[in-house]
Amino acid sequence: MTGSEDGLEDKGETENEGDGANGNEASRSEADRIDVPESHPRYESLLTRHRIEHGVEAGITSKQGLIAQGRGEAFDYLLGEETIPSADAAERAAAAQLLLADHPVLSVNGNVAALVPDELVELAAVVDAALEVNLFNRTDERMEAIADHLRAHGAEDVKGLAADARIPGLEHERGKVDADGIYEADVVLVPLEDGDRAAALGEMDKVEIVIDLNPASRSPRVATIPIVDNVIRAVPTITAHARELADADTDTLERIVDEFDADEALAAAEERIRNGEF
Amino acid sequence: MTGSEDGLEDKGETENEGDGANGNEASRSEADRIDVPESHPRYESLLTRHRIEHGVEAGITSKQGLIAQGRGEAFDYLLGEETIPSADAAERAAAAQLLLADHPVLSVNGNVAALVPDELVELAAVVDAALEVNLFNRTDERMEAIADHLRAHGAEDVKGLAADARIPGLEHERGKVDADGIYEADVVLVPLEDGDRAAALGEMDKVEIVIDLNPASRSPRVATIPIVDNVIRAVPTITAHARELADADTDTLERIVDEFDADEALAAAEERIRNGEF
Repeated sequence: MTGSEDGLEDKGETENEGDGANGNEASRSEADRIDVPESHPRYESLLTRHRIEHGVEAGITSKQGLIAQGRGEAFDYLLGEETIPSADAAERAAAAQLLLADHPVLSVNGNVAALVPDELVELAAVVDAALEVNLFNRTDERMEAIADHLRAHGAEDVKGLAADARIPGLEHERGKVDADGIYEADVVLVPLEDGDRAAALGEMDKVEIVIDLNPASRSPRVATIPIVDNVIRAVPTITAHARELADADTDTLERIVDEFDADEALAAAEERIRNGEF
Repeated sequence: MTGSEDGLEDKGETENEGDGANGNEASRSEADRIDVPESHPRYESLLTRHRIEHGVEAGITSKQGLIAQGRGEAFDYLLGEETIPSADAAERAAAAQLLLADHPVLSVNGNVAALVPDELVELAAVVDAALEVNLFNRTDERMEAIADHLRAHGAEDVKGLAADARIPGLEHERGKVDADGIYEADVVLVPLEDGDRAAALGEMDKVEIVIDLNPASRSPRVATIPIVDNVIRAVPTITAHARELADADTDTLERIVDEFDADEALAAAEERIRNGEF
C-alpha cells in the first residue's frame, strides 16, 4: 500500500496534529494502548504507527520524522519486516561493544523516543549507558518534551540539555552535545542518525553503532557497526544479547566484535532488499 | 539518508505543525516559493518536501500523508528518481485513455493536492476532466481545505463535497463520492490511492489509472493502467502526452491504449527497483 495516503487501518485521527499539550502520564498510557492482540499479523506495524503518531501529538516527533518513518517502512517492507541473520549478528556485536565500553552513550532523537522509549531505558540499564537527547533540528521545546517523555518511561538521568560541548565539523546548533555525554563517549549508539552527524562522530574516533533501514544511506556506511533493522526490533534484540553476554569475559566480547564484518552485513541487507519477496 | 530523522537540508521549521489557519492565497505563494534554482540536483526533492510540509500547515496533508510521502520517497530513490521508459509509456496510455473518455474524473486526496495542484488543474483542462476530492479519512474540514486549495490554484468546479453516491463494497464514510463525479465516471485517475478503494472502483468496471511508486502495492496491481512514477513527474507528463495527442483520431488513441501492457510495466518497475543503482 506504499504511496497511498493511508497504509493501515487507522482510527481517523488525522485532524489533531501538533497538540503538544499532553502530559507525560497521559502520553505514556496512550502510547502503549493499541486495540489489537500481539498475535495480529500487523501488530508491529500498527504499534509503530500508533507510537509515531502519538509522538507527533506529544510534540516529540517532527514532520520530517514522519516522512523518515515512511521511508523506513518502505525499506522494512523490502527486508521482509524481520531481523535478518546479518542484522542479528550486528546486534550481538553491538551488545558486546556496549558491554566493553568505558563510557557508552545511547543517542535519542524524536522518532526513537516515540518508538522505543521503554526499550531504550532498559538497554541503558543493562549495559550501563547514558541516554542523551540529540536532535538535528534542535529546539528547547522538543529537547524538553523528549527528556520528559524518557523520564516518564523510567529514565533517571537524561543528558543533552547542557549542550556544553560541540562535535567538530558541524554547524553550531547541530553539533551541540553534552561534555560528559556524547562528547566523552567511547561508544555511541545512534539510531536513525543523519548522515552528516554520523560522519562527524566517526571523525571523532568513536566506535559508532548505527541503526538504519537503508543499507545505502551514509550513516550505516560510516558506522563501525551498522545495524540494518527496524529500531523497534533492533533495540530489544541488542538488550537480549547484552543480558546473555553479561557474564562473558573480555576476550569473548572482543572476539564477537572482531568477527563482525560491517561490509558483509551491509551487502547481506542489500541482497535481501534486491532479492526478497516483493 | 533514509531512516534518519532528517533527509534533506531543511529550514528548521519543525515546530509549527498543524496550523490550519493559513489562508489560501498565503498558501499558494508560500507553497511555490523555494530558495533553490531548478538546476539544483535536489530541486525536485526539495520542492516536494516543501510542498508536502506546507500541506500540513494548510490542513490538507494528514500525518498518514506524511508517512506515505516517506514511503514514496524510498521507492522513488530505488527507481532512480526518474520516469522510467515503462512509466512514460503508461503515462502516454493514460493520456490517450483520458482523451477517449466520455466522463473522466481526476480523484484528489491530501497529498496530491499539496504536491501537484497546478498540474492537476492543467491536466483537467487539457483532457476536459472533472476534479473530485476523495479522502480515505474524510472530514468536512479537510474536504473544504482541499477544495479551497484547488480553487486557489485555478480549479473552477471541484466535486466531492456533495457525496450523494456510494462506491459499493466500502464502508459508508470511505465509499462517499459524487453522483455526477466518480460514481458516473467511465475513466478515473486515482493518484496515491488506498488499495481497498482502488479494488472497489475496479469492481465498478471503471477504467482505472493509478499512480503509485510501489509496483507491488495493490492499487497499481488492480489498475487498468498502473503508473509507477512520482506524481510530481507523472501528472505533467500525462498532460504533455495529452497535448501532443489532442488532435489524434480515435483509432490512434485506442491503439496506444491497446498496446500498453500493465503486467509488463509493473514487471519493468520491479526490475528497476531490484537492479538499479543503490
